[in-house]
Amino acid sequence: MVQEAIRRRNAGTLLQHVHVGGPVSRAELAERMGLNRSTIMALTTELTRAGLVHEESRTDTGRAGRPSLLVRPASDRCYVLAFDVAVDRLVAARVGLGGGIRDRREAVRPRAGPDLHRVVEVLARFGRQLYGAAPPDATCVGVAASYCGMIRPGDGMVRFGPDLGWVDQAFGVELGRRLGLGLSVAVGNEAHLGAQAEQQRGAGVGLDNLIYLHGDVGVGGGIIVGGRLLGGHGGYGCELGHMVVNPNDGRPCGCGSSGCLEAEAGERALLDAAGRPAEIYGRDAIRSVVDDADRGDPLAQESLRRVGDWLGIGVANLMNLFNPGMVVFGGMLCDLYPGAVAQVRGRIARNVLPVAREHVRLRTAALGDDATLVGAAELGFAPLLADPLGMLADPTPPADADRSRSTPAGR
Amino acid sequence: MVQEAIRRRNAGTLLQHVHVGGPVSRAELAERMGLNRSTIMALTTELTRAGLVHEESRTDTGRAGRPSLLVRPASDRCYVLAFDVAVDRLVAARVGLGGGIRDRREAVRPRAGPDLHRVVEVLARFGRQLYGAAPPDATCVGVAASYCGMIRPGDGMVRFGPDLGWVDQAFGVELGRRLGLGLSVAVGNEAHLGAQAEQQRGAGVGLDNLIYLHGDVGVGGGIIVGGRLLGGHGGYGCELGHMVVNPNDGRPCGCGSSGCLEAEAGERALLDAAGRPAEIYGRDAIRSVVDDADRGDPLAQESLRRVGDWLGIGVANLMNLFNPGMVVFGGMLCDLYPGAVAQVRGRIARNVLPVAREHVRLRTAALGDDATLVGAAELGFAPLLADPLGMLADPTPPADADRSRSTPAGR
Repeated sequence: MVQEAIRRRNAGTLLQHVHVGGPVSRAELAERMGLNRSTIMALTTELTRAGLVHEESRTDTGRAGRPSLLVRPASDRCYVLAFDVAVDRLVAARVGLGGGIRDRREAVRPRAGPDLHRVVEVLARFGRQLYGAAPPDATCVGVAASYCGMIRPGDGMVRFGPDLGWVDQAFGVELGRRLGLGLSVAVGNEAHLGAQAEQQRGAGVGLDNLIYLHGDVGVGGGIIVGGRLLGGHGGYGCELGHMVVNPNDGRPCGCGSSGCLEAEAGERALLDAAGRPAEIYGRDAIRSVVDDADRGDPLAQESLRRVGDWLGIGVANLMNLFNPGMVVFGGMLCDLYPGAVAQVRGRIARNVLPVAREHVRLRTAALGDDATLVGAAELGFAPLLADPLGMLADPTPPADADRSRSTPAGR
Repeated sequence: MVQEAIRRRNAGTLLQHVHVGGPVSRAELAERMGLNRSTIMALTTELTRAGLVHEESRTDTGRAGRPSLLVRPASDRCYVLAFDVAVDRLVAARVGLGGGIRDRREAVRPRAGPDLHRVVEVLARFGRQLYGAAPPDATCVGVAASYCGMIRPGDGMVRFGPDLGWVDQAFGVELGRRLGLGLSVAVGNEAHLGAQAEQQRGAGVGLDNLIYLHGDVGVGGGIIVGGRLLGGHGGYGCELGHMVVNPNDGRPCGCGSSGCLEAEAGERALLDAAGRPAEIYGRDAIRSVVDDADRGDPLAQESLRRVGDWLGIGVANLMNLFNPGMVVFGGMLCDLYPGAVAQVRGRIARNVLPVAREHVRLRTAALGDDATLVGAAELGFAPLLADPLGMLADPTPPADADRSRSTPAGR
């Protein structure tokens, strides 16, 4: 039993290496995993038989001697469906093992919130199209979605989605039902998923302590502590956008409080300060303020200084609390941050204890606007990577719906 | 090799159960650990032989049948030396396996900072006294200290101790040298250790997500995330006292910034607001403000309201970020919190997202002022509990000083 558990765990670890790191030789796998080459060969043989990896001769080697076989993810045969309900768009993608986006569909999402039924209808249609367009011998091993709101762990219930006005909406269950693939849908908060994506495939590769700030209408956060996403008692941690930074005369916040970081440094704060009327919003509006500031417009410059100062206070507080190795700015903060970098750096210098900032790096999201979608794909792959041999041992669709989460759909 | 590693890990887990939970029957251990009774018996036999547990018949059972043997920690034969450099006192204690304080020495510490040499001299004298007074067959298995400042992980270097004006002082190494027991000294930040103690033996038993705020001159923090202390990239996280809560017209802080939580809600903030002159400070001064407020003194009441409001903003921000199951107030905040509870609760209601506060509890430290000392003792026991059989396999003093951390001193 112990040996079998170890074998299955090793298979997951090996597949994780190949999935995240790309093609790698058996010899390198043996070294990274601390196992001998015959064990690696037995594992790769099993994973090849399961349709999860391919083995091929290395063609680019110039060295003499017997060539080591390269193990690469079977990205053509094994995929997940990933969805992203973002503030301005609805995205669906087929993401192959290895993390590459193989196919995608996208629609503009109106700001005035569509309801659960409408969002699920669009996403399910996209999902079925992607499923139908996949190669006939490919297997969908998971489905997951990123959502711009607070998600209950376990069942994909949207507890609070201020942007769409959703409260306690069974998004994951409903999307799974409408897809009709016999697979349940895992759901995560967009900033949580963005943080994990940036840590695994983006700016923060190799870092165990990282903070990702995701700005759009609001400001969300994903905080990696000791290699793991900070969940908290109920899974609702990381709400850095509702840290009060301006308690004295703060702007009202959508949460009902005032002076929250998102009220002072979110999209509307910048656009109001720059004199943009209420009907102007979105990424293009943010970029136009940054462009105006670059051209010397004093009001645009002042608006970036003001918002940058609040953003800097928030980031400084986070650094004192978390001592991160990196802070990543995502969503519209990718656009805003370069225009506010002086204020953010100034606040860090003034407000963060020297030892807590001595090794920190500040970056914009390397995955850009796909960070949340990539994070959703990783959420979809998680059950497979945890136990690939166990998951694929019984590829027939389950009779018991409760088991559907960990069983792949045959095609 | 795998079986041997599992056996040693199981021995550590069993000893941890006995150390933290107190006397327990073999049958209960078997159930808790998911092992059969013969495996438990083999482990307890080894741990008994190593002098770490005692087995005895249960005397208080009224039930019929063969009595189950009770396994209890050998608190008379196995101990650590624990030290606490607090803001107003220096403490040393002999703490037996099982966590009980068997003997202690304490001295008042003047506020005007004694230097490294003076602090180490007092603590080393206490430590040698405790060591000499221990039973002749008892073994000291570790030494650890709590310190009111930022500590470099690994070597016990005080990076920043604002209270004593220490910067980069080799406290752990120096205390180990002066003790002369051939044991190195592990050092932790007082609020980090207090958090771990409250989680293991205090108000937060059983909780994996807990925030401990420790107030004295400053305000420190220990934050448990997913069962583990938040360390951060360099080990300097949890500095919640330097979260900026009042950026507009904040009081100057000892860190060089202004408007930090500790500047607005620390000892001096309360005493200044209550009209106490600068030469009045310390726990008795805090208590006298709380007492005056209880007696109806308007200035004292207003000072608690003001400080309580800032404390509440800080706690609200922490709840949004960490979604903790519990917030524990320690140090002088044990005295202050009951007088400021309405403000703290008010801020939580106003500023924390509903889902992030729906299950949280607020408590004062169950271990009181010993929380930090108890935490230091646990730090001292950690190597033993990680691998009791490995650690005691070679009880002779090491020739190589680098190995002394994990080897017990014979007496």
